[in-house]
Formats: sequence, C-alpha cells, structure tokens
Amino acid sequence: MHERRIAEVIRRLGERDLDQMLVCDPLAIWYLTGYYTQPFERFFALYLGVKDGRQTATLFCNRLFPDASAYCNDIVLFSDTDDPVPLVAAACDPQKALGVDKDLAARWLLPLMGARAASGFCLASDAVDATRSIKSAEEQELMREASRINDQAMSWLAAQVREGVTEEQIASGLLAEYRRLGATDHSFSPIVSFGANAADPHHEPDQTVFHKGDMVLFDVGCKYQWYCSDMTRTFFTAEPTEHQLEVYETVRRANEAAEAIVRPGVTFAQIDLAARRIIEDAGYGPYFTHRLGHQIGLVDHEPGDVSATHDEPVQVGQVFSIEPGIYLEGDIGVRIEDLVIVTEDGCEVLNSYPHEVCVLDL
Amino acid sequence: MHERRIAEVIRRLGERDLDQMLVCDPLAIWYLTGYYTQPFERFFALYLGVKDGRQTATLFCNRLFPDASAYCNDIVLFSDTDDPVPLVAAACDPQKALGVDKDLAARWLLPLMGARAASGFCLASDAVDATRSIKSAEEQELMREASRINDQAMSWLAAQVREGVTEEQIASGLLAEYRRLGATDHSFSPIVSFGANAADPHHEPDQTVFHKGDMVLFDVGCKYQWYCSDMTRTFFTAEPTEHQLEVYETVRRANEAAEAIVRPGVTFAQIDLAARRIIEDAGYGPYFTHRLGHQIGLVDHEPGDVSATHDEPVQVGQVFSIEPGIYLEGDIGVRIEDLVIVTEDGCEVLNSYPHEVCVLDL
Repeated sequence: MHERRIAEVIRRLGERDLDQMLVCDPLAIWYLTGYYTQPFERFFALYLGVKDGRQTATLFCNRLFPDASAYCNDIVLFSDTDDPVPLVAAACDPQKALGVDKDLAARWLLPLMGARAASGFCLASDAVDATRSIKSAEEQELMREASRINDQAMSWLAAQVREGVTEEQIASGLLAEYRRLGATDHSFSPIVSFGANAADPHHEPDQTVFHKGDMVLFDVGCKYQWYCSDMTRTFFTAEPTEHQLEVYETVRRANEAAEAIVRPGVTFAQIDLAARRIIEDAGYGPYFTHRLGHQIGLVDHEPGDVSATHDEPVQVGQVFSIEPGIYLEGDIGVRIEDLVIVTEDGCEVLNSYPHEVCVLDL
Repeated sequence: MHERRIAEVIRRLGERDLDQMLVCDPLAIWYLTGYYTQPFERFFALYLGVKDGRQTATLFCNRLFPDASAYCNDIVLFSDTDDPVPLVAAACDPQKALGVDKDLAARWLLPLMGARAASGFCLASDAVDATRSIKSAEEQELMREASRINDQAMSWLAAQVREGVTEEQIASGLLAEYRRLGATDHSFSPIVSFGANAADPHHEPDQTVFHKGDMVLFDVGCKYQWYCSDMTRTFFTAEPTEHQLEVYETVRRANEAAEAIVRPGVTFAQIDLAARRIIEDAGYGPYFTHRLGHQIGLVDHEPGDVSATHDEPVQVGQVFSIEPGIYLEGDIGVRIEDLVIVTEDGCEVLNSYPHEVCVLDL
C-alpha cells in the first residue's frame, strides 16, 4: 500500500517534470510511510526521488522522535545539535529542480536554497495532495464510520440544549461522547453557537448562555482511525418566524441542490455555483461569505476546495463538504453541512442526520 | 506597549540591515498588535517596514477571520478567492531585502519570490524572537502565576496515582484541574509515564496500567493568560533501589548545579555543561539524550535553547527550562525540570515543588 502510494506521487511528480521532492507534512509522511510523529519545530521530512530510473524514499528523523519503522529505503537520523540542511542537500540532486512541500517552513527552505541543494525550487505538494485526494475503498470505509459517529454525536448535542447551559459546557463534553462512540479525537475545535453568535461562521464556544428561543448551530467533527468527519446542523428551539424559516429553507435547498449535481466530470466550481445561485436568487448572496466546501480526509481541510475558482472536475473517490450558509450579523446564522464521496454515477452522502426544520423539544 | 514592541523589532531589524519584514507566527502577531487568530491554511501576516524614516505596520487578514481590531497602521482585508501574494508584494519595497518569519510556509514564500516582492529574502524571526525573549515585569508575573498553578497541579497529579489507574486516565483529568486552578489550557500535551515508559522522554500517555513500585514521571504545563508553564517531576512508589537512587540523585544534582550558575553573562552552553558534566561524571552521559532546556513564554518551546551549541550569554528577563534527564531503555527514566527567570544577580526558580526523593504513599 505504501509502496503504491509513493509510486503514485513519483508518477505525478514526473507529470510535472520533477524527479525529486521533499515532503514535510507529518500526515503526508504517515500516509506514504506508515510512520507518524509530530516534530513541532524540529526538522522532519521525506525525500522522494528517481535516480537512474530507480525510485528512492529517504526519511530524515531527529533521534529524539520515537523509533522510526517506516516503509522507505533509508532513514537518516540526526541530533538536536546537528544541522539537517547539509544532510538533505547530500540526498538531493543539485543539477535538478526540487519540489517542496507547501508547508516547508522558511527556516528550512531558505538554508536549502543557500546550500544550492537543487537547481531550482518549486511547490510540488499537489502531487501528494492529488494522490491523497482519491480515497481507496478502505479509506472510504473509515470515513463512513467517522461520519456515522458524527451523526450519533449530533443527537447527543441536540439533547444537551437546555435553559442556562453555556456554549462552552456543551462543547467541552463532546470529546468524551466521541470517545464513547469509538472516535479518538475531534477533527477540529467544535463550534457551538447560540442565537446571533451563529452569524460568525467561525465563532468559538464561549460563556454565552442559552435561552429558549435561540437558534443553535453545531459544526463538529471527529477522527476515527486517522480519518475525519465534519457536519453542521442548525436547530430551532421555538417555532421559527417566517424570516427564520425563509433563511433556513434557502440554505437547505442550496445544500440539496449542490448534492444533487455531484458526479464525475462536474467541476468543483459548478457545485459551488449550484448552491450559491439559490442563495443569490433568494436575495442572500452577500451573506454567504465563504466557499461551499473543502476536501477532507486525514485532516479536516484538505487542498482542493469547492469554490468558484476551482474549475477541475471532481473524481470518483474524492470526499468533500457541502456547507452553504447565510450569516446575518446581530440576527441569525444558518449552515447545513454534509460530507459526500463521489461515486461512479453521483455521490454518497455520508451524513444521515436530517436536514428538515427541527424544533428541539426542551 | 504594542507600539514599543513593534519599534523594538524594527530596531533589531535595523541592526541586521533590514528595513522590512513579514511576521506570520499568530502568537507573534498577537504579541505585536494585540490581535489573535488561528488562520490554519489561510494567509495571515504582519508587514513591518520603515519608509523614509517612518515606521509602518500592516496586517493582512482574511475577511473570514474575526474582526481585526489591532494596533497597527493599516489592515488589508481579502477573501478566500483573492490571492494575497500581490497584495503583500504591493506593500513591500522591491528594491530592498525582505526579512521573513521562519514559519512562513513555502506556499507563500515561493510565490512572493516569483513576484519579486523584494530584492532578496532572508530569515529575520530572530528580531521578533529576541524581543519576545526578554519578558517584561507584567509578563514575568503571568509566568510566575502559570508556574504556581503548575506546582499545585503536580500535587493533584501525585494524588491520582493508585493501583490500576492508566496513564491516559490521569492525563485526561488534568485539564479540568488546571481550569479549576485558574488556567485556560495545557501549554503542551501532558506526559504521564509509568515505569520503563519514562525512558522515552516524549512518551505519550497510553493505556499502560500503574502497579505499585513503578516509578512515575509527570511533565506538564498550563497556560495562564497566554503564558506557559512547564515542569517535570519523577516519583517513587516504593523504596528506591540503590541504582534508582543513584540515577535520581544524579539528575537532581545536575538540575541544581545548572540552576546555581544562572546569572547575566553566563552562556546557555555553560548552563547546559554544568548539568551535563555531572551526568557524564556519574557515567550516564550517553543517556542524557537531549538539550538541557528551552526558552518559554507564549509557547512552550521558544527559540534560543539551553544547549551546547548556544553560546550567547543569558539576559535579565529571559525565562527557560532546566531539565536534565537520564533515560535507561527498558528500565527507568528520570527528569527534573523547573523554569527560571534570569535576574540581575542570579535567577528566580518559578517552581517550588520539591526536588527531593518522594515515595508516594499509596
């Protein structure tokens, strides 16, 4: 599996006329070699290259990291007092361009340039990202399970809403519930927003107290065996006003219109447009302030977003979010988000938690 | 305060013949402007420059971030579909070199180079780091309080040790205790190691079950109003053997010898050596596998470590850890860590939790 993934990345580098690359994202290194560590400020990278037609993968690891048993050809160990730059430069072919990870920090990139480790430096993460973007059957099954757990967690969240509870109280209890359901962690910091707080799409749970009648937005996700889920639902806690209902139903129709057109060959931009047009036609265009969605897998936000500027066609096995929203400052915020997997003839929606208006019975 | 900090960074840039810099570290931006956001993969930077003798600070912010009210001259907003690179390039003086944050990702640095935003690019974080390294009286007081809380938390941790408990159970309860004591968060993921697990200095708490007689190592820290603490203690749970005692006392003497020599003018390397020599003389040199310590402040590990290769003298107001350890694989691991503030005539040790051999009464 790891050999196949590395070969696929090297093939994609070849399409870009690159024979070598430095991968730094710890999860990408895990994906390619099976070895994970969180290096913090220390150097950690996987060099991939082709020399005389032979593929090579070399891992650069600080001795302080846990024992590296990785699927690669070579492991170069160094200590805190060693400079890893000459070690990496020695592995590179200085006559050829080096593809670099988009996450490679200037603290390493500028010295590698100074050491003339390669004839040029260019971004090459897309070769890794494009490989990661297409989920295998095994990966898809893990993502289904992560979303199944997230559906169950949404029921638990809805049951926590009661007079006097704070956003932070609900948010801080979620991890234990995820673990009870079999997940290992959050996939991102959970969003719990009462009332007008939901008009900030990235609101962080705070001491805001719930009062009956407030609308409630949950945007949450968990990790199941390394793979992420991510879902949003917006609840009522009193009969919705006509205005609230109009906003809610516009968002719901936008979500469902986008999900309805997903199939191989349709572009990410077209999917974004399918949702955006409904919101614009209802007069709320300026209040849908973000892209429609993002790809997801080992991290919550993977490259290749669902937005007006991304005109590549979607491919079978890609997984992304569909999350239209309308944000009216000082008033309300509504977002409805599912994950979908692109299939041969459409898509599979990973979340089964209903979209319909739900007035919580407090 | 923010104006003074920005002026100090610009002064230090001037010492390096630099007139402009791009700061990216979100905590550095908070330190310099009072505005904090976690941008994840989105662009977020503070441009600092001097033009015709006038200092300027411009913040580059995605519209999706919370409202930017920052101490700076200008805020440039952009959307997810905008490319921030030309915006930054327009702010830069292309005839001059640009200092860049060591954390600036290749995804932004390479396009800025491609856009010829500056005549050259070099690492300049040390101008920010050197400013952050010297803690003001207010910052010192927050760090004292963070360590006071950490001392209290160590008592709580010691009280959790009982037959059958797992490392993860103790670790997962710590956050609630920190909050009860007034802290907001961990400053890093807590290390709880039973028995031979402590021989891996970066062991992550797992399902290992405690049995009476195991040695127990806690390496933990909290955040109090943005500022971090970090302390390690190693406990016995049965009368120590002669071998265990020898290792423990060697580490304790190494810690105390290093703390005893800290004063302005002594170099970081000399402090490292003071501890290392004691461990080497006792025959355990090869088992002290890491640097003696690290600076600390808004993050747990700040630049400028306490190691053999850092031969700058320490300065009044710097805060760093002193954390010698001996790691004997499959046997035991001992580390004793305090934080110290450099004072006019020595140092103030921020942790008052005792160093002496402690056999927990289970």
